[in-house]
Amino acid sequence: MAEFDLFKLVRNEMELVESQLYENVKTPELILGEASTHLIKAGGKRIRPGFALLAARMYGDDLDYVIPLATALELVHMATLVHDDVIDNSVVRRGTGTVKYQWGNRISIYAGNFVFARALAIVATYDRRDVLELIADASMKICQGEIVQMRSCFNVNLGLKNYLRRIERKTALLISLSCQLGAMLSTSDNLQIEALRRYGYDLGLAFQITDDILDFVADEATLGKPTGSDIRQGVITLPALYALYNDEHRVELARLLSSPHECQENTQHIIDMVCDSDGIDYAYAVSQYYANRSKRHLELLPDTPVTETLQELADFILARDY
Amino acid sequence: MAEFDLFKLVRNEMELVESQLYENVKTPELILGEASTHLIKAGGKRIRPGFALLAARMYGDDLDYVIPLATALELVHMATLVHDDVIDNSVVRRGTGTVKYQWGNRISIYAGNFVFARALAIVATYDRRDVLELIADASMKICQGEIVQMRSCFNVNLGLKNYLRRIERKTALLISLSCQLGAMLSTSDNLQIEALRRYGYDLGLAFQITDDILDFVADEATLGKPTGSDIRQGVITLPALYALYNDEHRVELARLLSSPHECQENTQHIIDMVCDSDGIDYAYAVSQYYANRSKRHLELLPDTPVTETLQELADFILARDY
Repeated sequence: MAEFDLFKLVRNEMELVESQLYENVKTPELILGEASTHLIKAGGKRIRPGFALLAARMYGDDLDYVIPLATALELVHMATLVHDDVIDNSVVRRGTGTVKYQWGNRISIYAGNFVFARALAIVATYDRRDVLELIADASMKICQGEIVQMRSCFNVNLGLKNYLRRIERKTALLISLSCQLGAMLSTSDNLQIEALRRYGYDLGLAFQITDDILDFVADEATLGKPTGSDIRQGVITLPALYALYNDEHRVELARLLSSPHECQENTQHIIDMVCDSDGIDYAYAVSQYYANRSKRHLELLPDTPVTETLQELADFILARDY
Repeated sequence: MAEFDLFKLVRNEMELVESQLYENVKTPELILGEASTHLIKAGGKRIRPGFALLAARMYGDDLDYVIPLATALELVHMATLVHDDVIDNSVVRRGTGTVKYQWGNRISIYAGNFVFARALAIVATYDRRDVLELIADASMKICQGEIVQMRSCFNVNLGLKNYLRRIERKTALLISLSCQLGAMLSTSDNLQIEALRRYGYDLGLAFQITDDILDFVADEATLGKPTGSDIRQGVITLPALYALYNDEHRVELARLLSSPHECQENTQHIIDMVCDSDGIDYAYAVSQYYANRSKRHLELLPDTPVTETLQELADFILARDY
């Protein structure tokens, strides 16, 4: 989404979130602070804070009270990333070494827990039971999804439902929650809050499918991580899933994808097989379906510059060409 | 503390907490539920829920509203345990295989996060900012303490302050918080809440020092884990610390304790050296100091059967003979 300035309407607030992130991981424990700061520096698009701020901007100009929540959402996201890195033994994320790679498992686990606890401390200041309940619930669902993802690796017998569940926890849940919470702090119109929640959910799914396609077709410089990293880890995403069910070489593909050794050693061959099938086109069509659905939720919202931007984002995904 | 029935005044409520623990880790993800249930089944003394219930009983008979909080405190404790097991590569805890040993690192990390998120969902139902803030703050401090502990392994140049800090995070913080929160839900007398918080803190320190002594002098059956497990992991506790600074063989002991290899291979020899020094007696004296101090905080509390029980617990630690 580098070409699309989704967050132009909340540019200043995004900078405040950025500095709040650094403020919030300050700790006397040098290593803990360094590892957490490294996590922040590694960047990322700050999509979750951005959506929370955008949803709130829909209802007013003063976003001071949303900045801490937006910061907390990014901290929750960072906590899941650093724990994922421990588990997946990842070496590179966002073009730079992971915390796990530089500091080891112990620091990574504690850094994740620390950053999550910091997010909670921020959430506590809102004194809102409903906000905390939603965050606790999303955290549980994310854990459950991680287990599903883990158990699904190298399993060529799972279908679309399993895939959707995995990308829900990976992306859609937290983006959806960000839209919902940003709105909840800014309006009491439950229909509109719900519309924004659903927008975030569908958009999140479309966005993750796009990301999964890029892991097949983009180059390493664009991705900030090696192409084919999903295949290498045995994570079967939508393009591969399609090929597994529809391609003429599906028996051979199933043999390769169910073998950790083949996934490691013949990554490029597997990528080529998937790209030669209609898997990319199919995944593209599914992402379009969700992007279109996300736009429909926006019809319930007032006609503001924010609504327009959210619409443009969906259109941007729709117009994408691979 | 097997010989002392600390929780006799809240026996029925403790059983409710026990069943609530099982209720709260139910999840459709089979493995996640199994791992979490295993964690609960492995037992433990449920000291944290017990203290929360006792503190509340001080102010009334109906403890229904404290049961969920007491359950949440045990879940928070369990989350730290399962993450510690990943990190320390522990094989046995409480006489049974750890989650890490049976299910591996991935499930252990997610089980810890899941159980912690469940605790949060419970805390949310109280709708109390002060309660959540204290839990978030304790969680951060516990992470910071874990880092201190980790960096202190095999380091023979650290002193009493470092040791106290480590046992604070390991035990005192959460016991102290349990006393404090149990009281906070039941009275608005801030002086008494503070007295109970301090009681829990000092008692927690005394209790952990006792535990650290047992790791030198008890047998495996009593401990539920191998004797000398601290030494094996390079965790230098109070008896060893004393010997390191005062024993005639301190140079040799420092050489052994700073070597992971020696700690693994010559555990019994190191234990013998520490036991032959005055380290056990010294640690005992320090635990007595904190147990005595904990009793003084009780003077601010009303004269109830609970106060009497808390006093007896301190006396029980004081009367302990090694």
